[in-house]
Amino acid sequence: MRILGLDPGLALTGYGVVEPHPRGGFRVITYGVIRTAAKEPLPQRLLHLYQGMRALLETYQPEAAAVERLFVQRNLRSVMSVGQARGVVLLTLAQFQVPVAEYTPTQVKTALTGYGAARKAQMQRMVQLLLGLPEIPRPDDAADALAVALCHAQHATIPR
Amino acid sequence: MRILGLDPGLALTGYGVVEPHPRGGFRVITYGVIRTAAKEPLPQRLLHLYQGMRALLETYQPEAAAVERLFVQRNLRSVMSVGQARGVVLLTLAQFQVPVAEYTPTQVKTALTGYGAARKAQMQRMVQLLLGLPEIPRPDDAADALAVALCHAQHATIPR
Repeated sequence: MRILGLDPGLALTGYGVVEPHPRGGFRVITYGVIRTAAKEPLPQRLLHLYQGMRALLETYQPEAAAVERLFVQRNLRSVMSVGQARGVVLLTLAQFQVPVAEYTPTQVKTALTGYGAARKAQMQRMVQLLLGLPEIPRPDDAADALAVALCHAQHATIPR
Repeated sequence: MRILGLDPGLALTGYGVVEPHPRGGFRVITYGVIRTAAKEPLPQRLLHLYQGMRALLETYQPEAAAVERLFVQRNLRSVMSVGQARGVVLLTLAQFQVPVAEYTPTQVKTALTGYGAARKAQMQRMVQLLLGLPEIPRPDDAADALAVALCHAQHATIPR
């Protein structure tokens, strides 16, 4: 099953696509970020994010998607900004009929490291190791997206 | 100029369309709400909101749109929920190339009543009076949408 992990944001939306490796585990198909320019009006930025998401879904045709639940500790302005981007991201997934799973940060950390309070550097290192990458994925938003994709990979493939 | 006012929300997005009256002032073309069902998954709700917004824009072809800036005093969960809906609403406006103006609640209240701390009942009464409606528009979300449309009508037609 090909899984798209997403870390939605207005300036940067991280994405990562993983699928099962024939020899076990998972391998990365692609990862990166959709950027929008701060100098553009908000509706235009959301339109570019929408177009980027549709291109991603058309190109990689994932069978499932995973996103992190919001960080409720962020400030209100940031939550509104992330919320607007997240709305557009979830809309495109519905348009492509890709089922979406949501995970808390603790669930993602536990899935990758066995430790719900793992630090960012440890998480990034595990993403690198689990996917056999030559280096830690950059930027952070892409690494976060791969992490939530791997979290869903575990939840979706391990019988409860 | 035909103006679409919007009060975005996940469960209810209020809308109201006004245009200049041949005898001066503004008249209402339509108002109402786009509803999404709480029992549906979030991506589906956003898809229905998207479809409702597109139908509205296709039907009434507004030349300008106006939305309120977020209420930053709401709780984080509510801000995220409004943010997701707002992202989809602004996206559809960008797709239809409708320019969007944003107003603070104080700006809207001042435009309609001359008093920046006007109460909801007073605002609704002014919406009714300014548009010559037989009754106060219901639900509140539709009245709020008409209020921001009228606010934009004032700002757009009165020379600075």
